[in-house]
Amino acid sequence: MSSKAASASHPSPLKKFSFAGGFWKRAEDVNRTETIPAVLDFWKETGRIEAIKLAWKPGMPNRPHIFWDSDVVKWIEGAAYSLGRTPDKKLEAEVESICKLYAESQSPDGYINSYYNTIEPEKRFTNLRDNHELYCAGHLFEAAAALYEATGSRTLLDPALKFAALLSKTFGRKPGQRHGCCGHEEIELATVKLYRITGEKWLLDLAAYFVDERGREPNCLEAVEGSHTKAWPLAYYQADKPAREQSEANGHAVRACYFYAGMADIAAETGDKELLEACKRVWDSIVLRRMYITGGIGSTSHGEAFTFDYDLPNEDAYAETCASIALMLFAQRMLLISPESKYADVMERALLNTVMAGVSFDGRAFFYANHLANKPERYSNINVLPGRNPFPPERLKGFGCSCCPPNVARLFASLGLYFQSASGSAVYSHIYGDWDCEFALVGGSVSLSQRSAYPYDGHVATVVKPAKPFSFDLMLRVPGWASKWSVKLNGRRLAKPETVNGYLKISRLWKAGDKVELDLDMQPVAVEGHPSVRFNTGRVAIMRGPLVFCIEEGDNGKDLNDIRIDLSKPLKARFDKALFDGVPVVEGSAFRSKPEDWNKALYKAADAKPKLKRVKFKAIPYNRWANRGAGEMQIWTLRA
Amino acid sequence: MSSKAASASHPSPLKKFSFAGGFWKRAEDVNRTETIPAVLDFWKETGRIEAIKLAWKPGMPNRPHIFWDSDVVKWIEGAAYSLGRTPDKKLEAEVESICKLYAESQSPDGYINSYYNTIEPEKRFTNLRDNHELYCAGHLFEAAAALYEATGSRTLLDPALKFAALLSKTFGRKPGQRHGCCGHEEIELATVKLYRITGEKWLLDLAAYFVDERGREPNCLEAVEGSHTKAWPLAYYQADKPAREQSEANGHAVRACYFYAGMADIAAETGDKELLEACKRVWDSIVLRRMYITGGIGSTSHGEAFTFDYDLPNEDAYAETCASIALMLFAQRMLLISPESKYADVMERALLNTVMAGVSFDGRAFFYANHLANKPERYSNINVLPGRNPFPPERLKGFGCSCCPPNVARLFASLGLYFQSASGSAVYSHIYGDWDCEFALVGGSVSLSQRSAYPYDGHVATVVKPAKPFSFDLMLRVPGWASKWSVKLNGRRLAKPETVNGYLKISRLWKAGDKVELDLDMQPVAVEGHPSVRFNTGRVAIMRGPLVFCIEEGDNGKDLNDIRIDLSKPLKARFDKALFDGVPVVEGSAFRSKPEDWNKALYKAADAKPKLKRVKFKAIPYNRWANRGAGEMQIWTLRA
Repeated sequence: MSSKAASASHPSPLKKFSFAGGFWKRAEDVNRTETIPAVLDFWKETGRIEAIKLAWKPGMPNRPHIFWDSDVVKWIEGAAYSLGRTPDKKLEAEVESICKLYAESQSPDGYINSYYNTIEPEKRFTNLRDNHELYCAGHLFEAAAALYEATGSRTLLDPALKFAALLSKTFGRKPGQRHGCCGHEEIELATVKLYRITGEKWLLDLAAYFVDERGREPNCLEAVEGSHTKAWPLAYYQADKPAREQSEANGHAVRACYFYAGMADIAAETGDKELLEACKRVWDSIVLRRMYITGGIGSTSHGEAFTFDYDLPNEDAYAETCASIALMLFAQRMLLISPESKYADVMERALLNTVMAGVSFDGRAFFYANHLANKPERYSNINVLPGRNPFPPERLKGFGCSCCPPNVARLFASLGLYFQSASGSAVYSHIYGDWDCEFALVGGSVSLSQRSAYPYDGHVATVVKPAKPFSFDLMLRVPGWASKWSVKLNGRRLAKPETVNGYLKISRLWKAGDKVELDLDMQPVAVEGHPSVRFNTGRVAIMRGPLVFCIEEGDNGKDLNDIRIDLSKPLKARFDKALFDGVPVVEGSAFRSKPEDWNKALYKAADAKPKLKRVKFKAIPYNRWANRGAGEMQIWTLRA
Repeated sequence: MSSKAASASHPSPLKKFSFAGGFWKRAEDVNRTETIPAVLDFWKETGRIEAIKLAWKPGMPNRPHIFWDSDVVKWIEGAAYSLGRTPDKKLEAEVESICKLYAESQSPDGYINSYYNTIEPEKRFTNLRDNHELYCAGHLFEAAAALYEATGSRTLLDPALKFAALLSKTFGRKPGQRHGCCGHEEIELATVKLYRITGEKWLLDLAAYFVDERGREPNCLEAVEGSHTKAWPLAYYQADKPAREQSEANGHAVRACYFYAGMADIAAETGDKELLEACKRVWDSIVLRRMYITGGIGSTSHGEAFTFDYDLPNEDAYAETCASIALMLFAQRMLLISPESKYADVMERALLNTVMAGVSFDGRAFFYANHLANKPERYSNINVLPGRNPFPPERLKGFGCSCCPPNVARLFASLGLYFQSASGSAVYSHIYGDWDCEFALVGGSVSLSQRSAYPYDGHVATVVKPAKPFSFDLMLRVPGWASKWSVKLNGRRLAKPETVNGYLKISRLWKAGDKVELDLDMQPVAVEGHPSVRFNTGRVAIMRGPLVFCIEEGDNGKDLNDIRIDLSKPLKARFDKALFDGVPVVEGSAFRSKPEDWNKALYKAADAKPKLKRVKFKAIPYNRWANRGAGEMQIWTLRA
């Protein structure tokens, strides 16, 4: 990233980063050994790979779908990241063969799309609003860039660049060019990636065109022929006003955050302050008023969309896995432009809670929607009415619209990009864990070797290993959730550590072996929501460090909503080695109704003081919920 | 009603009943002067009357719909009740002219249906499951019976009987007969009404056939050709098992309760104990586990259906107005078979809360769904997504599917039928108010003259006026909500009044002018819901007498969910003469968050003890909500 902002930083390439063990290594390993193969299997089963051969004919099964390409190339992107770090001949051959199919499917003028090239080749670019054509192109660009960076392969990159050239010729403001942008953003940030790989300015211009054109008059989305789906209000597509005038996060949450990430990319590349200000406004709109405690966004299933301020229902939460990944993309770009811990806080919140909850512990099943409370009877009784719930609260191996599983795969295959970055004279540690990374700074090269059981433990030891001693700033994030923390340098506690924008800054002449130990207090905390979040009033959620906890029926019995946490008693964390691969659990004291007081009545006069019995409760990390069978679950629990 | 049950009672005919003034008289008057004309206007505007002429041709506006007939004849039924009590030449002429249209539209063999006879005459009786044909027939029978009883007119009765004869010939178990019943019950209870008017046994047999056949193998609903709509599970149609085996209230709530009312009618007429036991089981299923505090039923909009036990969401409540009317019909039949106050309690709860809330104070606008909480932003922001909410929380003059307005009209035009009944030697007062009614008992005739500001006041004075002194039992309901009450006879308090099944029983030789004064305590009460109702835990609803109260934004500010009622302080009722036509309001003390504690944050660590400020709140009767502009509303409020 060649940001114009003076403070901007850039992550070290994935090849320079590795996990040494623990929580994160397991996440990466499960992704590589389970998730990536499982997703490819699902593509093969459902005809998504076959579709690229353009051989489908009416009457055959598995009719190609308008956004199948995006599924497949997101998987390629994930597989590519993985190959760059863990060579795997068989996987590489598989990736190359699929990329060759795409190359072979390319029209002479550069166009690639297995749906249009098979089903209705004459209709290409006629329904940009609904048919995800440039969205598919964008994901193909990202995959091409990732594969090229990982293995040097141009098998997908050359077709991608030729396709990009077609788009550049087709779309724009010059005479004879089409006026248009895509109903589902993605092409913007993806084209910037091609630009960063090639350095070719026309790619940046193309990306900037798509960002700038959106929401201007005449609206680029109104040029639609043969619309297949219903039209939403323009705000649903973030096209109600130009990018620079956007201030409220509206519409489809994934589209919105992909767009905001693209806006931030253009702002970073061009130094466009107006665009960056718009990014900051929509950031606040999301983070201060429209984000679940889990980092989930897009609260309604109806259109997978943002609704209005503070409208964050728990049981009906949509909070699509892809939307939290999109929020991470946006957060990462804001963080790199301006290293403020508030951006990393959200990135981490979304990653550790919604995105990790989006995949099963075994890595082979996925949530599309990430509810914050679950009542199984909604999904499993004779009154289940057809079509009531498109995404029930059990993880599945794939979906008709199966965007989330490959998004999870590419995210976990590229985790290192979110953990660290460096600017000319500063190196940043954003998320903690067992990892090693090399950085090239102005004054020399340095590697950091970090050891921590984070996110389960708050002790973070970072050993600095410069090739030769030189001066730079070591910037360690002080998470927003850490109310207490301390730091030692080479065994000596720093009495008055300096913090800048939520980062602990240690500036010195660093020598190999210098060790910084950060201790973040991880006492469990009860968190409350803004009083305007009508679903959470009178309730608390339990957090410990960056992890949101939940209570499950298996541990706490039915009717979780009847539990009232007693905050006058301590919340106690302990590490449960027997649960999953070992997780922290939080236990505490609470009250519950006495069933014997009810005698089958549905309503009765309330006692002046509720008659309740004292019970214990046990909470587990939300990202591990629904891995022990179906049952009730909830994050926000009444307080006594 | 010629019930075989020894204890059964029957209401005095509407012509013997009148309201003397007050709350109920206003309800009846507004219904007559506003609602009945408004509903007819809507029928005319939308082509529902024109449709009966069978003159619609393709290309013309207002294509007849499969259940339009039911709308019109429900209105006729309501208008007929009104004519029986308040003659009105113009209205009578209007009713007669519409009835003539139906008579003229009748096929030579007796068939009546403006949709089928216009659009696809060859398809009659081919899709009993989806197309509401017998449902429309049933409402026509009810209208015909009501008009005949009210004015003696046979204009609709004769065609109805001819139509019934066609059904009797067509459907049944004899050789050559069709096996079938209707996807939307109504024909069962309606055919019993024709039986009661004519005394002709074949009508009772026809009704019993429809009740008995439902849910047997082969299923009468499976005989469907040309289905237009999606198939639900059989339980949705109460057809998963025979009537006598039903035990859980499932599926479409209106269909269910119309069916249960029909089952109860057959049980009453035949003395079928097995059928009555099934009625009692589904009654318990509704009343103990699936009914809102407002008497609303059918909690989900998806299929307008029951869901599962204790699943009673407030903001998403469906609680269709028609469903609560259907529950009243069922409750009334159970009450007449077995005079227990628990049936009258539910009848009154549904009437005074959901049904009355279903119509505006001015009588000209209607709710279809009756939410128990409202957040206006769900319906009025740029994120309103197409199709999200079929029935927003504002009353409208009519709907595409406009079943509720005429149902309200016929209910309020026949209110007296729910207030009183008599058996051989007992006279019952079920609902109190300013009314007079004549009864024929075994020992002689008697009129009751009751004076009370009920439901706003608990003092009920009943003067007994027998034609000549004779002995009978005066049975006055002691409502389930009345925790304290007392009674005086001719000014002297009865020390040990006898109660039977929730009715105060006074047996004596009654003389004209004997006066009974019942005093029901109407202190406001905070009510709580069963702990398994997950939406209500930690919350209370305020009731005063039979009325459920709610808080509105106009009186209490935004963010009603942030209010915590302090039950250690008294709830105080006062009569607000300036509000509507004068209503009781309930005021009390509560706590609220301090916005200044939040400083824009969406989440923050909870204080061990919540920092709240003390506020006052004001609640109004729920049945008057949304009559003073849009705003938040809620019934279930957090307790401190």
